[in-house]
Amino acid sequence: MTEPGAAAPRHAFVLTISDGVAAGVRDDQSGRGLERRLSDLRFEVRRAVVADEPEAIRAAIVDAVGSAELVLTTGGTGLTPRDVTPQATEAILDYQVPGIAEAMRAEGRRATPLAALSRGIVGVRAGALIVNLPGSPKGALESLEAIVPVLDHALETLAGPVDHGSPAGSSVAGRSVAGRRVPGKRVAGR
Amino acid sequence: MTEPGAAAPRHAFVLTISDGVAAGVRDDQSGRGLERRLSDLRFEVRRAVVADEPEAIRAAIVDAVGSAELVLTTGGTGLTPRDVTPQATEAILDYQVPGIAEAMRAEGRRATPLAALSRGIVGVRAGALIVNLPGSPKGALESLEAIVPVLDHALETLAGPVDHGSPAGSSVAGRSVAGRRVPGKRVAGR
Amino acid sequence: MTEPGAAAPRHAFVLTISDGVAAGVRDDQSGRGLERRLSDLRFEVRRAVVADEPEAIRAAIVDAVGSAELVLTTGGTGLTPRDVTPQATEAILDYQVPGIAEAMRAEGRRATPLAALSRGIVGVRAGALIVNLPGSPKGALESLEAIVPVLDHALETLAGPVDHGSPAGSSVAGRSVAGRRVPGKRVAGR
Repeated sequence: MTEPGAAAPRHAFVLTISDGVAAGVRDDQSGRGLERRLSDLRFEVRRAVVADEPEAIRAAIVDAVGSAELVLTTGGTGLTPRDVTPQATEAILDYQVPGIAEAMRAEGRRATPLAALSRGIVGVRAGALIVNLPGSPKGALESLEAIVPVLDHALETLAGPVDHGSPAGSSVAGRSVAGRRVPGKRVAGR
Repeated sequence: MTEPGAAAPRHAFVLTISDGVAAGVRDDQSGRGLERRLSDLRFEVRRAVVADEPEAIRAAIVDAVGSAELVLTTGGTGLTPRDVTPQATEAILDYQVPGIAEAMRAEGRRATPLAALSRGIVGVRAGALIVNLPGSPKGALESLEAIVPVLDHALETLAGPVDHGSPAGSSVAGRSVAGRRVPGKRVAGR
Repeated sequence: MTEPGAAAPRHAFVLTISDGVAAGVRDDQSGRGLERRLSDLRFEVRRAVVADEPEAIRAAIVDAVGSAELVLTTGGTGLTPRDVTPQATEAILDYQVPGIAEAMRAEGRRATPLAALSRGIVGVRAGALIVNLPGSPKGALESLEAIVPVLDHALETLAGPVDHGSPAGSSVAGRSVAGRRVPGKRVAGR
């Protein structure tokens, strides 16, 4: 599928979480904007939409992880009881990466103090990076932009090759299973 | 009770958490300072004092939520085993809003690195916003000031009207029950 | 052991968490660097090395807390499944101090956005402060430097004397048990 010598394609999944978009009464401007930006960043992008229902959100993320190394959600990170994206995401993560969520909000507060109100979390499941972005088109794109500087490194680390305090060469490289790489281990980035 | 055309009154509760104040051997300067500032911000304010006891803290917050849409605690956020406010608060929250706690500390660190030592958390219970502030008068007031820019929006969002990805007009407004508004749902702020 | 009138010695423990260092195939540059810096800060320092195994990490921290009021770990805070230091640490903490972890990452991001990828946590166990630092020599030292401004205050607070909203003089001083101070309680720092 890939030209010899070309970089392997990277796969991203954009999950819009919105009762209104799921019901067909609201335009998915955030999802489209994220897809465009990810294409610019050389990801192959797929998208889906679910309502603000924990079970549907969990199932959609778990499914997306099977075919994408990056899963962005948009929507459902606000303050109301209907905003359940962070709780649903947390339930299916292997572990959180709190510093990415902190960085998104810290960068966001430079534009508006309201960035503090996004409850989005970030973490890893089965070697894929899951990122909760806000629901508004502007908030979603700005939050994505805030993590672009760490995205390549984060995904490369998750994909292996393994180097966790071992000298180069003694490590086992990440290997392909069912079309995606199994995460290896590797020394922390800094 | 309210003049026709006037805004509905907003209710805040200030809970001082301090063995010394509860025992009557320490002055509640922080509680009084917070009450004054909240009055300036057009809240009707009630106050109470409890010792640093988890059960008493939990009961006081749960009770306050019945009559206030904003509950500020002051005290018990430090490093010692007697500082139990964050743990007690977490136990009765429906969900946390980590970005508000991050913003308070980030703003606080501009004044003093010791702001990093406050373990305060922020979250929602039954549509009310609960905020742990530090115990010192200066720390408490500065932390409150750090969240004033998001307070109106946060409380309006929690109070409804509902708009969670639905087009304007299709939403159900927050309604009054027993003197306080029941939280609706609404799209995230940005 | 201590000169009359001299300050009591402070004890720190540096735990290097690395498969490679534990196997003897990687140099422990981070551990040595942290030991040097802590000595400059007038700590008596001990060190140990463990592999990236949760049980070994938990046991080493629990053991270190018995003889040190400050425990720094280096390594295992990255994104891969083999990076288990934060999870292992969290399991044995009495409570977290999230603001110190936030401050380390916020300061780190001024040098490199990759600082957001450290999943390190900070907390207290039995009156000792436990801090997860990144694995790289540069990341570990920079993160330590970021918390030096709060270190004295944090350790003094944890060591007592007790003053938790009580007037000065009514408090019980921290006392020595088996060579280390038992944490008292004390009012939060700000």
